[in-house]
Amino acid sequence: MERDVQMEYMNGMGLLEATTLDMLRKSAQNNQPIQIHGAIHNIRDMGDFAFVILRIPDALVQCVIDKSGEPGAVFESLQMETTLRMDGIVRLEERAPDGVEFLPSSITPLSTPVEAMPVNISKRFRMNVNLDTDLSNRPLTLRSGELRARFRIQAAIVRAYRDFLERNGFVDIRTPKIVGGNAEGGTNVFRLDYFGRKAFLAQSPQFYKQTMVGVFERVYEVGPVFRAEKHSTNRHLNEYISLDFEMGYINSFYDIMNMETALLKHIFATLEKDCERECKALGVVIPKFDQIPVIRFRDAKDAVAEKYGHKIKDPFDLEPVEEQLIGRYFKEEFDSDFVFVTHYPSKKRPFYAMDDPEDPAFTLSFDLLFRGMEVTTGGQRIHDYQAQVDKMVARGMDTSGFENYLMIHKHGMPPHGGLGLGLERLCMKIFDDNNVRYSTLFPRDMNRLEP
Amino acid sequence: MERDVQMEYMNGMGLLEATTLDMLRKSAQNNQPIQIHGAIHNIRDMGDFAFVILRIPDALVQCVIDKSGEPGAVFESLQMETTLRMDGIVRLEERAPDGVEFLPSSITPLSTPVEAMPVNISKRFRMNVNLDTDLSNRPLTLRSGELRARFRIQAAIVRAYRDFLERNGFVDIRTPKIVGGNAEGGTNVFRLDYFGRKAFLAQSPQFYKQTMVGVFERVYEVGPVFRAEKHSTNRHLNEYISLDFEMGYINSFYDIMNMETALLKHIFATLEKDCERECKALGVVIPKFDQIPVIRFRDAKDAVAEKYGHKIKDPFDLEPVEEQLIGRYFKEEFDSDFVFVTHYPSKKRPFYAMDDPEDPAFTLSFDLLFRGMEVTTGGQRIHDYQAQVDKMVARGMDTSGFENYLMIHKHGMPPHGGLGLGLERLCMKIFDDNNVRYSTLFPRDMNRLEP
Repeated sequence: MERDVQMEYMNGMGLLEATTLDMLRKSAQNNQPIQIHGAIHNIRDMGDFAFVILRIPDALVQCVIDKSGEPGAVFESLQMETTLRMDGIVRLEERAPDGVEFLPSSITPLSTPVEAMPVNISKRFRMNVNLDTDLSNRPLTLRSGELRARFRIQAAIVRAYRDFLERNGFVDIRTPKIVGGNAEGGTNVFRLDYFGRKAFLAQSPQFYKQTMVGVFERVYEVGPVFRAEKHSTNRHLNEYISLDFEMGYINSFYDIMNMETALLKHIFATLEKDCERECKALGVVIPKFDQIPVIRFRDAKDAVAEKYGHKIKDPFDLEPVEEQLIGRYFKEEFDSDFVFVTHYPSKKRPFYAMDDPEDPAFTLSFDLLFRGMEVTTGGQRIHDYQAQVDKMVARGMDTSGFENYLMIHKHGMPPHGGLGLGLERLCMKIFDDNNVRYSTLFPRDMNRLEP
Repeated sequence: MERDVQMEYMNGMGLLEATTLDMLRKSAQNNQPIQIHGAIHNIRDMGDFAFVILRIPDALVQCVIDKSGEPGAVFESLQMETTLRMDGIVRLEERAPDGVEFLPSSITPLSTPVEAMPVNISKRFRMNVNLDTDLSNRPLTLRSGELRARFRIQAAIVRAYRDFLERNGFVDIRTPKIVGGNAEGGTNVFRLDYFGRKAFLAQSPQFYKQTMVGVFERVYEVGPVFRAEKHSTNRHLNEYISLDFEMGYINSFYDIMNMETALLKHIFATLEKDCERECKALGVVIPKFDQIPVIRFRDAKDAVAEKYGHKIKDPFDLEPVEEQLIGRYFKEEFDSDFVFVTHYPSKKRPFYAMDDPEDPAFTLSFDLLFRGMEVTTGGQRIHDYQAQVDKMVARGMDTSGFENYLMIHKHGMPPHGGLGLGLERLCMKIFDDNNVRYSTLFPRDMNRLEP
């Protein structure tokens, strides 16, 4: 269909429509012919007729081809992954994959693949390929039911995150990913050449989001962060999406945990409402809770050491196995998928973390564990200039190089704090996957820079 | 106010509230005492009483301090940028900056700055500092009325962008910013060391968003892109936010321009509805239009050469001055702030651009000019495998290294296309600024890596 290229105005009317399940269901009710489009997900030849399973953005549509009719002539040229446009009638059909069936009166192929797929994604949902094969073929495996469901749910999580924060007065910000200082002071930082100067990829929007608390009181950001961690585990990515928020005028860091609790409730309510089919297909069990238990770091360590006979090796940090045991403990004792672990030791938290005035060996900070894995780190930050400088000096840090950060303390900051929530880890635990790579479109790790 | 740190559960109820203008207006109507918080934006001592101008996230609140009362005793210790909490009564007051006045019965300072501000941001709106001073003090100048208004509008633009695309069936995606291949083949790319391998920062999500058309038909992304351009102009940033979308099953590239036209209408309608005060304060004139004119590249060049006596130097590209003249032409002749310029020469467009079958020296592509500056580049992409390989070969490109990209063509892609809209440039033209740096929180250019 060629448009008149001499047209002189665009008016934004009569927009091209996507083919969606909702559109098909409505069409089935009014029984009028419509035009749809999509790619061929599978073909089943039954003799006199054939089923062409059409992949549309949010469903699979069973198309019934009567081989004796006009579409039957086209049928012979169709392959898996052919894209096409069809005219025809929709009807509801319980036995069809997503409950609708299409009876085409005409079929127009739009493009034809030149090779058969190297992986089989044509099953209704699961692919049953190993992760390495999946990752090497991600541009194609993403077309499978199981990966499409995961990334539809992920999009819904981010949407719910934004909606909740907007409703609570948080302002959406975008902060630089190329930074001049090695902000967090860690070694796990990617270096790049910036017009002959040393620069780094941001490990978090930490300083910038704190700065913006002085501007808008409450801010949030959804963006990539970069960690040059030299270990390849099932729960680490070298580039991932951090859901950050930061809020001012807090009474204590419990205000932050309480905000996250309400946020998580909203996210799960959104998934129940908007992603029912995807959750069902993936076998997702959405956590239900009225409240999230809170336990101090030291008490959590002791509790699992006692109950499970775990020997404490590092008194200042949680090993992954301890996170798992704490998760198990709170599931068994409190039937809770979540637990806030608070008051982490000061020596393992960053220099901007506020120490507990009652015991400065610990901080007013927390991690949120979800099904035995840390998905959030947060806490109250130091807002007083002298207190911040003192803590840096006590750590042997040089405050020069931090002028742009300390500027905000020098010129007035309210008590504040916030958190960073790892999107892919949250998804991994929701999906009950054994690897975080299922929750990122194109994972970056020590071995993978492509696709 | 100390919470009981022995509390064992968070329930997400009774969330701490931000202080907003809306809250104050409501309070003025019911005349009940409330507690508010904020930072001191300005102080005016009137003798027996004083005005403390409190900065809250979306407004300035005039607080009237009776010096003879209890708050009067605290008043002497207050400075600009002191943060505080106050109890008191709100009343509507037309002469006050944002129409409300607060009468505190008690004042509790929360933090006190240690130095006076190096720039004066205490005016009601404009700062009147030069750009360089502004940028060097951005963590502080962002607290000014004029910068706060800009970034509230920017947040609303992004929200409107998302809302429009979600309603039209586009799925939100997040693609990697560290990439293995020099995707667009340009020289303006930042290089980094990735565990001993060469890697690059993504100049656009181009290949990934095309890949995702094969998955969800319609996708969008809001994310940073990186261009190592070695020139410092008023309209270039080395890191900026690209609003990308890509759609499949298009009939022609006019479908993309039509979608953008409707999108822009929605964005401007949102600004009128949600950012009335900010637009008024900034003097923003929101463009009004029913339609956007479309002109071919060659015709546009000829039209301004003729009307303004401009001499064409480069027949294959538009110089910035030509963009300005084309913008002026369409303002004068059609009273339009926008114009789509189509059919750019093939030799200046990327290898994935689809050539015009009627004249392959030109492409089925477009730029959108807004008030004389390019804010969008888009077009139809090649979806056929052999056509894509042929074009690469004709350009002398080696297809090896592009296997992951060509995989999608090989295994079936629908006709598709999309665009990238530069957020900061769009803002710059909406604000009628002379420099794009006013529209990014912490700009990155050849000279600035900080703050």
